[in-house]
Amino acid sequence: MAIITLLTDFSEKDGYVGILKGVILTIAPNVRLVDLSHEIAAQAVLAGAYLLGRCAPYFPPGTIHLAVVDPGVGTARKGIAARLGSQFFVGPDNGLITLLYKNAVQQKQSIEIVELDRPQYWLKEVSSTFHGRDVFAPVAAHLANGVELKELGTGLKDPLLLPIPEAQRTARGWSAEIIHIDAFGNLAASIGVQELGNELNFQVYFKGQTIGPLKQTFGAGKPGELIALFDSAGSLALCVVNGSAAEALDARLGDALEIQFY
Amino acid sequence: MAIITLLTDFSEKDGYVGILKGVILTIAPNVRLVDLSHEIAAQAVLAGAYLLGRCAPYFPPGTIHLAVVDPGVGTARKGIAARLGSQFFVGPDNGLITLLYKNAVQQKQSIEIVELDRPQYWLKEVSSTFHGRDVFAPVAAHLANGVELKELGTGLKDPLLLPIPEAQRTARGWSAEIIHIDAFGNLAASIGVQELGNELNFQVYFKGQTIGPLKQTFGAGKPGELIALFDSAGSLALCVVNGSAAEALDARLGDALEIQFY
Amino acid sequence: MAIITLLTDFSEKDGYVGILKGVILTIAPNVRLVDLSHEIAAQAVLAGAYLLGRCAPYFPPGTIHLAVVDPGVGTARKGIAARLGSQFFVGPDNGLITLLYKNAVQQKQSIEIVELDRPQYWLKEVSSTFHGRDVFAPVAAHLANGVELKELGTGLKDPLLLPIPEAQRTARGWSAEIIHIDAFGNLAASIGVQELGNELNFQVYFKGQTIGPLKQTFGAGKPGELIALFDSAGSLALCVVNGSAAEALDARLGDALEIQFY
Repeated sequence: MAIITLLTDFSEKDGYVGILKGVILTIAPNVRLVDLSHEIAAQAVLAGAYLLGRCAPYFPPGTIHLAVVDPGVGTARKGIAARLGSQFFVGPDNGLITLLYKNAVQQKQSIEIVELDRPQYWLKEVSSTFHGRDVFAPVAAHLANGVELKELGTGLKDPLLLPIPEAQRTARGWSAEIIHIDAFGNLAASIGVQELGNELNFQVYFKGQTIGPLKQTFGAGKPGELIALFDSAGSLALCVVNGSAAEALDARLGDALEIQFY
Repeated sequence: MAIITLLTDFSEKDGYVGILKGVILTIAPNVRLVDLSHEIAAQAVLAGAYLLGRCAPYFPPGTIHLAVVDPGVGTARKGIAARLGSQFFVGPDNGLITLLYKNAVQQKQSIEIVELDRPQYWLKEVSSTFHGRDVFAPVAAHLANGVELKELGTGLKDPLLLPIPEAQRTARGWSAEIIHIDAFGNLAASIGVQELGNELNFQVYFKGQTIGPLKQTFGAGKPGELIALFDSAGSLALCVVNGSAAEALDARLGDALEIQFY
Repeated sequence: MAIITLLTDFSEKDGYVGILKGVILTIAPNVRLVDLSHEIAAQAVLAGAYLLGRCAPYFPPGTIHLAVVDPGVGTARKGIAARLGSQFFVGPDNGLITLLYKNAVQQKQSIEIVELDRPQYWLKEVSSTFHGRDVFAPVAAHLANGVELKELGTGLKDPLLLPIPEAQRTARGWSAEIIHIDAFGNLAASIGVQELGNELNFQVYFKGQTIGPLKQTFGAGKPGELIALFDSAGSLALCVVNGSAAEALDARLGDALEIQFY
């Protein structure tokens, strides 16, 4: 049973997600549907890319990720289907695959991308405002039914990739920024175990606070304490134990932090 | 594998949706469950009716739509099961089927409705506050199991239908109102491609703004621009490109708009 | 097809729930997944325990409830898997099973609990911050695949149970408190049909209001009226007909109410 995951900025308020599912099940009645999130902030493509990058590695090979965060719908932006290592992607060519793509490159996995230009795999009528329903959901369903990627469109070599904030070396350590704030208010930074490895003799400077040394787990801090740890995705994270670091520090995406070794 | 969709005003906070699913799976273990929305505003029957009307056409024939927006639970209001063309409905007789019913009539599809009066298809104990759990979920599950509609209750000819705001002709065009505001802040009006057809030489007057001529897509406007287009359901919609028209115009359901041909 | 339900405080914003599902489906591709709620307030273990207690009885025997509200992740708190009567539980040993456990004891059903201490049933790498992903989801999946409970860990006799607020007899009736506020704003009390049985000649005193006698259903009150009834879980509830008692009375969890017979 093929799996299609769904990631959108639709919320669950209006039934748009239900429509995607109806379209898919009409074409591929036996597919399994899994919601990743429909609470991506409206048109926040980079946030969608991060979420896909965090979730996809945990799905079985062959999983199809249908992602519709699509501020450019109805413009000249392309639609794509892609195989990035063992995972498939269907959606707009606007950078949603950025993290999946980088991960595949880094792990030397093969990549295959097509531009969706074969209307026989779409709904008969294609609106100019809802390609999720008219193009991407049908394509994902046909892919789940076993249609090969190369049948769905023409090969494409240069998908749009978004610039990803990367940590910079400084004289005394690293400079990074907040790239994700989760529902608990934990602040994930653009640096993690990959860059810092075993060099754990550092402190974090963030919005006037000095945080460190690194804890192993939430339980190593006292309730209410501001701590730094490597989160479950391997990122350096600032957290308030049993509380919200985002609220405590009034933190926003893009806020800068400094790491200094001692 | 039969499909049951779920539409409620329960939110996902309290587990009421989980209870519906547990009841269904106990009776019909192989059914496929699809959430349409559980974020209908509390007791907003008309909003639920619109959402059903927008989503149901995209589901395979034979899909069962279980809808529980039920401010009248425990009163004399009836429960019904219905076949409206190729789609089934189970829920209170309070107007939730209004759009499905009108669509079926308009498309000359056959309609069959029964009043749920056969307790052998319900849970053994029926509360006076949660018929979703005790009556509608079990009935939907039995329907999915192949029980025929006429077995579930007694024929009913006059289901409750809600008045649907309809656009009115005026000397210079049409008068309409806002009937749906989606999570992006797009404003859908009670008029659309059906009424306006090819007569696209009009402007829209709304809350002191003049909007028009009609765009084909979001991409035809500049970010932040207020535009009018036909949305993916064919309704005339007012939208701010990559923004929220609802916020920009402080718009509410029921706000009036004027369309004038030039 | 085994059923795994999911209950967390993750929200659906960040993809953590999607990750749980990906892990489960990698190990147990045929399992059926049902969301109970991911909107439990952050780290509100007791709220999760109540929700599980309300939902689980409606699921088929053999259902596995994966619950991750886990403020103590990475501390010495244990992980457990349990059979409580006909239902299974997997999650932290922090009281989430309290209601399931009490119900099983009350109904004289057998109980079997193991402490999760067999890493062969976990992901290969176990983080110190996300045992939902690394320990509990894999264990639930293996259980769904037919691994026996006793294979998953070592028998444990004294799971952590939370103190549950219970109603107290008073000279003229009962003293109780608000234990759940649902999305409609209905206030459920720590007393219900079990304690009050047929003795329905009482009034409720709450925040300066006198409410009673008990209604049978919402429809027995006028829109906007503050009423008391037994809710669908059998609890005494204070409700505003077609409105929110929580808002009308500015009520909070733990607020005290008095019941006096007349």
